[in-house]
Amino acid sequence: MKSHTEYLTFNTSKRREYINITSDIEEALKKSGVQEGFILVSAMHITAGIYVNDAEHGLIADIDEWADNLAPFGKDYRHHQTGEDNGDAHLKNLLLGFQVFLPITNGILDFGPWQQVYYAEFDGKRKKRVIIKIIGE
Amino acid sequence: MKSHTEYLTFNTSKRREYINITSDIEEALKKSGVQEGFILVSAMHITAGIYVNDAEHGLIADIDEWADNLAPFGKDYRHHQTGEDNGDAHLKNLLLGFQVFLPITNGILDFGPWQQVYYAEFDGKRKKRVIIKIIGE
Amino acid sequence: MKSHTEYLTFNTSKRREYINITSDIEEALKKSGVQEGFILVSAMHITAGIYVNDAEHGLIADIDEWADNLAPFGKDYRHHQTGEDNGDAHLKNLLLGFQVFLPITNGILDFGPWQQVYYAEFDGKRKKRVIIKIIGE
Repeated sequence: MKSHTEYLTFNTSKRREYINITSDIEEALKKSGVQEGFILVSAMHITAGIYVNDAEHGLIADIDEWADNLAPFGKDYRHHQTGEDNGDAHLKNLLLGFQVFLPITNGILDFGPWQQVYYAEFDGKRKKRVIIKIIGE
Repeated sequence: MKSHTEYLTFNTSKRREYINITSDIEEALKKSGVQEGFILVSAMHITAGIYVNDAEHGLIADIDEWADNLAPFGKDYRHHQTGEDNGDAHLKNLLLGFQVFLPITNGILDFGPWQQVYYAEFDGKRKKRVIIKIIGE
Repeated sequence: MKSHTEYLTFNTSKRREYINITSDIEEALKKSGVQEGFILVSAMHITAGIYVNDAEHGLIADIDEWADNLAPFGKDYRHHQTGEDNGDAHLKNLLLGFQVFLPITNGILDFGPWQQVYYAEFDGKRKKRVIIKIIGE
């Protein structure tokens, strides 16, 4: 069994930002030398997400608007009694998910034609991390 | 370490359809010969979902109505400026999730009494694929 | 390859309840002896969830209110024609997710500073189970 672990670091300039990390994952996969296995890509924070979808800027704006409609920024969440203002970011993390699990077949990411992995920042302007962990043979 | 990979293919007659794929997964598990391990079941498209829930037709209709209320078909999504009309299907994929990860114990799917795996098509009438990847010993 | 499987059992006194199970997972990890690998934590029922977020009581109340707004208890779901009254719990399971997948690095849970694993009961007052399955080396 081989294992390989990497951490990506983000510090976005905007509060919410969507960053395509597919090529980072493919580079980690190459370094791992794994031919058959799994890749876990998981946000290490509870106010960010990881999702797989399309690299299309209109859709990314749709996703941002949709998530903010269902989990609005600026609402008076109970969580804000702690001094935070990011209750919406916690809920967006739950809505979009914080991790994906990817198959490796014959040494490459076994993806369909349009699948791209995104880091979704919901409470940026601070340092955040994502773990990429690869296990297989 | 053993690994086994299969692909399921769908081409639904309706735009939205919910298909129980639990027995396909159990057959793949038998072929793999894995006794202890994990099964990844993951849609290879970004307008379809994979979820675990009940094989009850009323509930399936509830899920369809609920997902369409939260991510409505027919809205004027920015994504439609590309010529597509499936913005809702991308959002439903994010809402319901596109993959599940299942435990194998003593050679069988280690499931609770009501758990069934569903392929959820949100933009059908075209060829779609699902990967089943099994890793273990 | 090492594998280790445990089952947690819950029987909550309230219909909805949120229980921090991070220490249960860490104990299972110690027993497993795994240094590099993955932990699957998955509800074995379709009316409960597993999620990772903050151990902050205000936020937990926000999550409960948010989930109940998006998938309300007491609505006349088609599923209730079977005699059940828990249609909302099935939808909450889909909204919040029923499983998480956690990385093990150097024998410990490779988590960020605020990540805690929660069992979310949406239809309690009955026996429910969660599987913890650890695989690695």
